[in-house]
Amino acid sequence: MQLLEQRIIEQGKIIGSDVVKVDMFLNHQMDVELICEIGKEFHRLFASCNIDKILTVEASGIGIACLTAQYFPVPVVFAKKGVHSNVGTKLFTSTVHSYTKNVDTVIGVSKDYIKEGERILIIDDFMANGEACKGMMEIINQAGAVLAGIGIVVEKGFQPGGSKLRDSGIRVESLAIIESIDDGKIVFRK
Amino acid sequence: MQLLEQRIIEQGKIIGSDVVKVDMFLNHQMDVELICEIGKEFHRLFASCNIDKILTVEASGIGIACLTAQYFPVPVVFAKKGVHSNVGTKLFTSTVHSYTKNVDTVIGVSKDYIKEGERILIIDDFMANGEACKGMMEIINQAGAVLAGIGIVVEKGFQPGGSKLRDSGIRVESLAIIESIDDGKIVFRK
Repeated sequence: MQLLEQRIIEQGKIIGSDVVKVDMFLNHQMDVELICEIGKEFHRLFASCNIDKILTVEASGIGIACLTAQYFPVPVVFAKKGVHSNVGTKLFTSTVHSYTKNVDTVIGVSKDYIKEGERILIIDDFMANGEACKGMMEIINQAGAVLAGIGIVVEKGFQPGGSKLRDSGIRVESLAIIESIDDGKIVFRK
Repeated sequence: MQLLEQRIIEQGKIIGSDVVKVDMFLNHQMDVELICEIGKEFHRLFASCNIDKILTVEASGIGIACLTAQYFPVPVVFAKKGVHSNVGTKLFTSTVHSYTKNVDTVIGVSKDYIKEGERILIIDDFMANGEACKGMMEIINQAGAVLAGIGIVVEKGFQPGGSKLRDSGIRVESLAIIESIDDGKIVFRK
């Protein structure tokens, strides 16, 4: 997505050879007009997939998921972080490992809000190793729901998450894929 | 707001005499079409207030803030929870006490995203004691920005947050104010 790549180049802060901070428009301050365009693009890509619900995980996925969901329109469900895995019968839970922070977080969704057979679109802001997506997919499986696809705003193409998911047959649409960061310059996948 | 009160009556789960759970449409599963109507109503109420930015706090405020912000349109900034108050010069921080959980949480906003003189609208899903709002107001003060008003989806009118803020001269607009919960029946303030 041209508009998004342009914004990443103009405003993204490169840290070392593998981090691009986009918290001035995507995940701390949010440029809602840009994210509406992102939502329209996700809708264009997944409009024919009979989506029943969008699933994301708190916190930075929620705004993007909501601004996307209005174009379908479908409800959003967000997985909560830091729930207890022993809550028992009320929640679907899974454990998400963060490589950046080197911690495990349990995420959970009430069993009332994802039902058997529902077609679910996962939306998130970033994908690197794909751990958050794997956690959400586990919850979708527990519910007996169907993963219809994954929409990611920015994918780090030099980390394995996206490739692994695509290789396993899942439709992953990332609106910007960073192939590499060379000498402070961001190279996008064509 | 009629549509919202009706939904609370139809779907809200009353627990004891002071809790109404609305996580089936507002803060776990999100009815994005309803929340767009909520956003339009906040815009109607605050359209003439020259809002520069909407401030909320993660997690459940973010979706409501984003769906509201698109009608102005202005950016959203969300305060992050669990930041360290000793991050030093990069963040405005304040401590928010939760009476329900009896814990203190430090919330923080990057100094890059709230600037002196900006007119800020606070948006949040719930208000009881008003602690989250007080925390965000402290951050607005630290930035030298201006609090233009507070928009709340559901206020618990039998708890003191809203009254205290209004008494201090702040414009607080709550779209539904629960006056009391009597024998399992919700009474709204007229």
